Amino acid sequence: MPTRGEDTRTRILTASAELFARQGYHGTGLSELLDAVGLGKGGFYHHIASKEQLLLEIMFDPIDRVLHSSDRILGTDADATTKLRNLGTDLGHAMAADLAAWTVFLREYSALGHDGKAQVLKRRQEYLDRWRRVLADGAANGEFRELDLAFVESILGLFVYTFVWARESTPPETLTDSIMTVLLHGVCAPAHPRSTAKRD
Amino acid sequence: MPTRGEDTRTRILTASAELFARQGYHGTGLSELLDAVGLGKGGFYHHIASKEQLLLEIMFDPIDRVLHSSDRILGTDADATTKLRNLGTDLGHAMAADLAAWTVFLREYSALGHDGKAQVLKRRQEYLDRWRRVLADGAANGEFRELDLAFVESILGLFVYTFVWARESTPPETLTDSIMTVLLHGVCAPAHPRSTAKRD
Repeated sequence: MPTRGEDTRTRILTASAELFARQGYHGTGLSELLDAVGLGKGGFYHHIASKEQLLLEIMFDPIDRVLHSSDRILGTDADATTKLRNLGTDLGHAMAADLAAWTVFLREYSALGHDGKAQVLKRRQEYLDRWRRVLADGAANGEFRELDLAFVESILGLFVYTFVWARESTPPETLTDSIMTVLLHGVCAPAHPRSTAKRD
Repeated sequence: MPTRGEDTRTRILTASAELFARQGYHGTGLSELLDAVGLGKGGFYHHIASKEQLLLEIMFDPIDRVLHSSDRILGTDADATTKLRNLGTDLGHAMAADLAAWTVFLREYSALGHDGKAQVLKRRQEYLDRWRRVLADGAANGEFRELDLAFVESILGLFVYTFVWARESTPPETLTDSIMTVLLHGVCAPAHPRSTAKRD
């Protein structure tokens, strides 16, 4: 159960993510942040070291969540196709649940300092390594085509960019479905049974 | 042949795009811009109305180029698969040729004001409409699967996000190839002759 301090911290992160997503990091002043979370300067800085640290934690949060669930998905003994589908569904759910934070993740990278960028990059690579492993496993056992693994760099683009840009016009399930249809057909080897039907 | 004024203008756009891509729009001061283009304040503002106008023109330029070439591609009587492939190759070339401007296009949208955002959105939609038309034509004539056209929102994500993030580790041709392999296999109907071979 979260302590009251954690509650306040979560409230700060959520409200700030909304503001940064709507107005940009540089377009959001401290007084707006304080108004949004209903705290004075002292209370705010009790929980948050600096505005940049706040930005960094907003960006860590969504990637840490999918990193965590990707480990659970990779830990099962499902085939690579199922793992790929589960990674995609999980990422789609995560985007829909936390779109403000993902919008900040997409748009505010350049507002980070050198160390912050390195920390975001590291997490991003760790997450994409999970996808890379599934794509490599599937290629090795014949489920997937032999793909240049540079394609892994496109995975976050497929999801993050699409959700951030299309959120107002299209429901999240439709976005995930349309992405996963192309992704699964694009990745699966045509002769493999799992491309069109489940193995019995 | 460009006039000297156009040369200077192009030089300003190119140098500013590099700076904004590297340091962010808000992280780049006017004095740095002036140093980079070798102009005084007066000379600079002779060509550029404001820093935001500069940002806007940096973002217009790459999308206007691919918009222009997409009209040429759609104007041919090639089949939908060929048009899709040509749109992808053209977009990949455009990204590689002008990565700084595309990086700004990806990362600095939130730095624009309300009108600027509307203008960028309009061009973005016009460009994606070309892709939408090809995907719809291909679905109508059986070349492509029936896809939810929400997928079109993913196209720019596939390219822009991938190029911006992977530019240092992977050559542009590899990125375009890996994206187009998945995209074409993902989109083409499996039974259609053009999915695996050219029609004679």
